[in-house]
Amino acid sequence: MTNTLSIPQSVQWKDDHILLLDQQLLPHETTYLELRTIQDVWNAIVSLKVRGAPAIGITAGFGLALAAQNYDCETLQEFIEKLTKDRDYLAGSRPTAINLFWALNRLTNSISNAKSINGAVTTLIHEAIQIQLEDEDVCKQIGEHALSLFKNGDKILTICNAGSIATAKYGTALSPFYLAKERGIKLEIYASETRPVLQGARLTTWELMQADIDVTLITDSMAAHTIATKGINAIIVGADRITANGDVANKIGTYNLAILANAFQIPFYVAAPLSTFDPTLSSGQEIPIEERDSKEITHLNGQQIAPTGVKVFNPAFDVTPNELVTAIITEKGIIDSDYSRHISLLFNK
Amino acid sequence: MTNTLSIPQSVQWKDDHILLLDQQLLPHETTYLELRTIQDVWNAIVSLKVRGAPAIGITAGFGLALAAQNYDCETLQEFIEKLTKDRDYLAGSRPTAINLFWALNRLTNSISNAKSINGAVTTLIHEAIQIQLEDEDVCKQIGEHALSLFKNGDKILTICNAGSIATAKYGTALSPFYLAKERGIKLEIYASETRPVLQGARLTTWELMQADIDVTLITDSMAAHTIATKGINAIIVGADRITANGDVANKIGTYNLAILANAFQIPFYVAAPLSTFDPTLSSGQEIPIEERDSKEITHLNGQQIAPTGVKVFNPAFDVTPNELVTAIITEKGIIDSDYSRHISLLFNK
Repeated sequence: MTNTLSIPQSVQWKDDHILLLDQQLLPHETTYLELRTIQDVWNAIVSLKVRGAPAIGITAGFGLALAAQNYDCETLQEFIEKLTKDRDYLAGSRPTAINLFWALNRLTNSISNAKSINGAVTTLIHEAIQIQLEDEDVCKQIGEHALSLFKNGDKILTICNAGSIATAKYGTALSPFYLAKERGIKLEIYASETRPVLQGARLTTWELMQADIDVTLITDSMAAHTIATKGINAIIVGADRITANGDVANKIGTYNLAILANAFQIPFYVAAPLSTFDPTLSSGQEIPIEERDSKEITHLNGQQIAPTGVKVFNPAFDVTPNELVTAIITEKGIIDSDYSRHISLLFNK
Repeated sequence: MTNTLSIPQSVQWKDDHILLLDQQLLPHETTYLELRTIQDVWNAIVSLKVRGAPAIGITAGFGLALAAQNYDCETLQEFIEKLTKDRDYLAGSRPTAINLFWALNRLTNSISNAKSINGAVTTLIHEAIQIQLEDEDVCKQIGEHALSLFKNGDKILTICNAGSIATAKYGTALSPFYLAKERGIKLEIYASETRPVLQGARLTTWELMQADIDVTLITDSMAAHTIATKGINAIIVGADRITANGDVANKIGTYNLAILANAFQIPFYVAAPLSTFDPTLSSGQEIPIEERDSKEITHLNGQQIAPTGVKVFNPAFDVTPNELVTAIITEKGIIDSDYSRHISLLFNK
């Protein structure tokens, strides 16, 4: 069978530029931007044209490599000074994005033994591509493990966009859906719209539709009724951070779904790479929950939908306690009990 | 203490016209329309300027009385013929609204013993006012009973708008909040925005703010996190239909909240008048769930927020099973167990 599956990718290296999917314009317009300077890359990250921790890291890595190959330097010393300055510049584009610093530092570290400017440039480009390839591989492995939990005909609910366009390719929670499609396994996906920012409605539906995957949009309020009447078999979500005991911080609304899964006795799965784990935090209670601008709730596309001056509570994330998590699916396999011990083992192998 | 509480009312009888709050313009504009002809009334109902089953019935009753007082008739026979025609005209404005037919028939039945045209007109106006007063009284009694379940400082979550503007005054689920405010009992209300049509964001916040009641808006997806972190003490909702066994059909999203209340071991209350009960249905499984236009989800204020052509599931209601309902609060008191027997008793008194 020829694989003609169209899985959208948000970042592509094109030697003299970066091709970047403008996620701000989705789902109305599918526009790929050509980023040719480090300022282009900085602007794209700042203005949220790229989102998803891995995709931001990949974009920043390519951005630094792109800048470096155009330096006009006499000495390696001068090259490294410029590179360090540009690394700091890009690191300031999203000051809370861990993957951004990680990718940028990985690039600067990669040339610590460089002997020439040309050699350093080659190494930087290679390292940036490597970051992307590794992330794609991680996502694919997560998808393989997750797919082992599903069977032909399953109906699966997800929230937010833990998808291909948030990563190198495939995504985390959405990865098994692409692998199923490639192998002719039929899954029916329900996407929760994910208020307030509507990543489910705008992004998850869009990217699954690109690959011709069967997806149905619901509002977050319809989850219980949909599980009860459509016979949802499982819920799968991504994660922003997982603590040492297996508590899961993820997009607001995830905790609702975990409780519903528990009540309906269907599995609640979390798909996340090892890089999402934070073993320095003992439980989810230590995770600070960011509260965002009330306008995200009171306004939509610039239009006001609630009374002027109304009080608003707008937490960006919630924390699902480990006892509601049926299994956590990583690139190294599935853990489904005794999370503290199994997570500790994952990091001490 | 002087009662200066401002509780919005959607319908007011003004002798030669009806003053109607245009709920379509809320929360941006507070506009009261003067309805002077039966066509005005028909248009207001058809175009959803008035919503809420009791408020629609009250408006229709006033509309028929308004029309009748302007008839130019020679005989009572001619008067009754015109009235019957106008009743049928108004009954066609919302063909699925039970309260509409009930109110209109109550008016036409009220003049079955009329001796003169003038007497009939007086009776019709009296009957229309009576319908409104009775509904206000029912709502106030529901509020009294419900308030007995809350204490000073409680934090209470609600969904949709079972409020003053959906009824004669006070509302059902919101009624205890107004009575608490009148008596200096402090309650903190959390309003779930209620996607897709946003009755919580647009209407519940607005009407509680008019009475200076402490209300905070959240998205439906934030319910679990809000219960867990804000210490919500109870959830209270209205109902569209309650079956003989105590199953509750209400706005989509209600079932989610009932399951969350159960998981967090906080009470889940349903506030509804006896007119909401349908003892002819043995359980909620017999209630047909209306599916509405997918545009309610894919568009907001005319703006598209999901991909063109996306599949959508848009049920208007869900059914909460009786075992998740802590108590049902009616104008006749509170029932909190053995619903089949207690509901049967309510209707056989």
